[in-house]
Amino acid sequence: MSLSNSNPAAAAESAKAASHFLATLNEEGRNAALQEIHDELKASKDEILAANAEDMEKARKAASDGSLSSSLVSRLDLSKPGKYDEMLKGILDVKNLKDPIGKIDLRTKLDDGLILERISCPIGVLLVIFEARPEVIANIASLAVKSGNAAILKGGNESEKSFVAISKVISNALERTHVPNGAIQLVLTRDAIAQLLDQDQYIDLVIPRGSNSLVRYIKSSTRIPVLGHADGLCAIYVEGSADPEMASSVVVDAKTSYPAACNATETLLVQDAALSSVWPSIASALLAKGVELRCDAATKEAIKDVKVPKGGSVKDSTEEDYKTEFLAHIIAVKKVSGVDEATEHINNHSSHHTESILTADKTVAEKFMSACDSAGVYWNTTTRMADGMRYGFGTEVGISTNKIHARGPVGLEGLMIYKYKIRGTGQISVSYGEGPGKKHFKHEPMPISDSR
Amino acid sequence: MSLSNSNPAAAAESAKAASHFLATLNEEGRNAALQEIHDELKASKDEILAANAEDMEKARKAASDGSLSSSLVSRLDLSKPGKYDEMLKGILDVKNLKDPIGKIDLRTKLDDGLILERISCPIGVLLVIFEARPEVIANIASLAVKSGNAAILKGGNESEKSFVAISKVISNALERTHVPNGAIQLVLTRDAIAQLLDQDQYIDLVIPRGSNSLVRYIKSSTRIPVLGHADGLCAIYVEGSADPEMASSVVVDAKTSYPAACNATETLLVQDAALSSVWPSIASALLAKGVELRCDAATKEAIKDVKVPKGGSVKDSTEEDYKTEFLAHIIAVKKVSGVDEATEHINNHSSHHTESILTADKTVAEKFMSACDSAGVYWNTTTRMADGMRYGFGTEVGISTNKIHARGPVGLEGLMIYKYKIRGTGQISVSYGEGPGKKHFKHEPMPISDSR
Repeated sequence: MSLSNSNPAAAAESAKAASHFLATLNEEGRNAALQEIHDELKASKDEILAANAEDMEKARKAASDGSLSSSLVSRLDLSKPGKYDEMLKGILDVKNLKDPIGKIDLRTKLDDGLILERISCPIGVLLVIFEARPEVIANIASLAVKSGNAAILKGGNESEKSFVAISKVISNALERTHVPNGAIQLVLTRDAIAQLLDQDQYIDLVIPRGSNSLVRYIKSSTRIPVLGHADGLCAIYVEGSADPEMASSVVVDAKTSYPAACNATETLLVQDAALSSVWPSIASALLAKGVELRCDAATKEAIKDVKVPKGGSVKDSTEEDYKTEFLAHIIAVKKVSGVDEATEHINNHSSHHTESILTADKTVAEKFMSACDSAGVYWNTTTRMADGMRYGFGTEVGISTNKIHARGPVGLEGLMIYKYKIRGTGQISVSYGEGPGKKHFKHEPMPISDSR
Repeated sequence: MSLSNSNPAAAAESAKAASHFLATLNEEGRNAALQEIHDELKASKDEILAANAEDMEKARKAASDGSLSSSLVSRLDLSKPGKYDEMLKGILDVKNLKDPIGKIDLRTKLDDGLILERISCPIGVLLVIFEARPEVIANIASLAVKSGNAAILKGGNESEKSFVAISKVISNALERTHVPNGAIQLVLTRDAIAQLLDQDQYIDLVIPRGSNSLVRYIKSSTRIPVLGHADGLCAIYVEGSADPEMASSVVVDAKTSYPAACNATETLLVQDAALSSVWPSIASALLAKGVELRCDAATKEAIKDVKVPKGGSVKDSTEEDYKTEFLAHIIAVKKVSGVDEATEHINNHSSHHTESILTADKTVAEKFMSACDSAGVYWNTTTRMADGMRYGFGTEVGISTNKIHARGPVGLEGLMIYKYKIRGTGQISVSYGEGPGKKHFKHEPMPISDSR
């Protein structure tokens, strides 16, 4: 790992060169590097926490005069109980994942002695831009080494001292391994982001980890593909046939278990057949949790007899509410006639992240899941299931609302692409075709024995 | 299919709406639409050829005063023997491909009654920008309908009358099917490309089919992902252990069988151990085919005794030659010390399209294929194998040098993405985790029975 203080373009170029070597390093070599990073970070806990304390002091001052939010200060703190050990454990977790390189998913006999194979390989150079949290640097370095990708890291300025301390430790650790120095680079230059986003000849993928505004800025500022989501405007559609108790429990979980998460539900669509049966139970449960209901006329009318406890409230919705990611104890509610109107509303308003239908009708549920153009489409469960750990991916690179490459929670797989190998015995193209003396390709599928 | 003469933004918006319906249309419905398109185009051959004749007349005039190239005029001609029938056959070929929608490639039991599935689905809206060839419109319409994607087509102005005639026929055909009118749209407005490239809220993927300069312009003018390749700078590296006859045959095929193709070889790297053994045979064979060899000092010296026949020539290379896609009977030749220098040269000079090594040494070949950062990496065969039909994909959307989503020859698969479905029974997120009373996810892989 190296620190590139001055020149983002040079950092990108040397990362590209390193990526070519890293792509050929075997699993043993990459795992050994992860173990070294883990061990060295474990041994250097005191000095890293000391550097982090300096960042914290500066941040607390900035927070006290109002120039930094207190939640950002909290995310900066590596000395919270368990946080450092969690970071260390995360490195070993990534090490223990199955090698994503060299997975063969297609093998075809084109002709005798002419075998085509499609095999997974690293993408190349990742640019990861993240905000204050200093432990992300260890996480990203691990994911990059495991997947054989080089990575350029640009963190928030608030945690500069922590970043520098961690990156020096990682750099020392990598000195003892086969991972080249340029493979993981930390760029500290202030305002380097714009220059990095311009290096599309060297950088293959940008992964922003941070606020919606960061992601939106990056998506609109680069020709390099961006993996991520700016918004998480998730919806639940509830039908009259849904069990009221189940529906209440799911909607409360989706709205209140972690309102700041991108997979929290922001919009509730209520089938007219559910207005007098299921909806009042859901409304009571949400109100009891202190949620503000922003209702259209029909859904408001249907709960006029529901008691509003302290904390909760019922208001009239505006059209804007159905396009708003509240990230708070607020939900927009709207009556729809059925699954068609529900999916149309969702396809026109949602951020294509995750949507759920609550119904007893399997046919309608399948229709909903097929028609909603979102990364996650669920039946009778909470939108908060949209998460790489919950999906069993072992790690999460991020959640993508892209329509190409990787969609939904993205594990290590999202950092891979493939190449085609052909092993031949001198075949040439002019031998094949129509007409006298020409051969035909055999195109016989062959078994894929994963011999790794 | 509809003609959008005036408003590219409106075309994009209605294509998005149509894509949502098309994504839910079953295979039977999509195949019936392809059959209708085929039948109607077959029945309307005379009127389409009449419209094409008008384009041809105008184009011939433009060619005679030098404002249009004669090769473009030739590509415009639908009345060439066999061309129209080939277009018709192509539609049925696409119809007969396996349905790309609904393929399940991951199924996990997250918990009892909580099943996660990853299933293929269409990307959404494609923008296909192509040059004069009018038959491309039928090809693209077929690929879009088969893959459940809506498509906006923008063709070259030279074939406007042919496009209009074909699109009217396709429009009539689709009237009798379940494919919505907005699903396939032809945009005729001159200078509409820039406006279309700006519709990233509606358009999910741009596919340019045409010259390198077209692709390069598009790649640098849009935030929408672009599937394609601007350059095809392929290389062959030949070692001393390669059989001279095999090597000559492969290099001649790679250079001369179709020099204008993107998979033709432009650079030949010669191991120093091959200079006096294999290289002179290759040089003789290339010169006999009228190829101009642009050599560095070492490779030129090594063939000083080789007779140069009429047509062929040997010149000194410049550094620029190793970065040039000649698309002609010219090849740049350079001595390298071995596989490491060869892959380094390729990774720094090639367009990451397709490269081949000619050697008797399996270990070296595997190293080359692993280290070259290109979509196709071959051993002992010609770079011209890089082709969707040769790979057995049935159809080819294009060849991609992208590092994400789809790489190399792209079949229907490249027009697909996936979504995650979860079928639950009321599970909520707060039930899972660490601590008293909390459940753990099971994450049990389940068999993937393709029940389509």
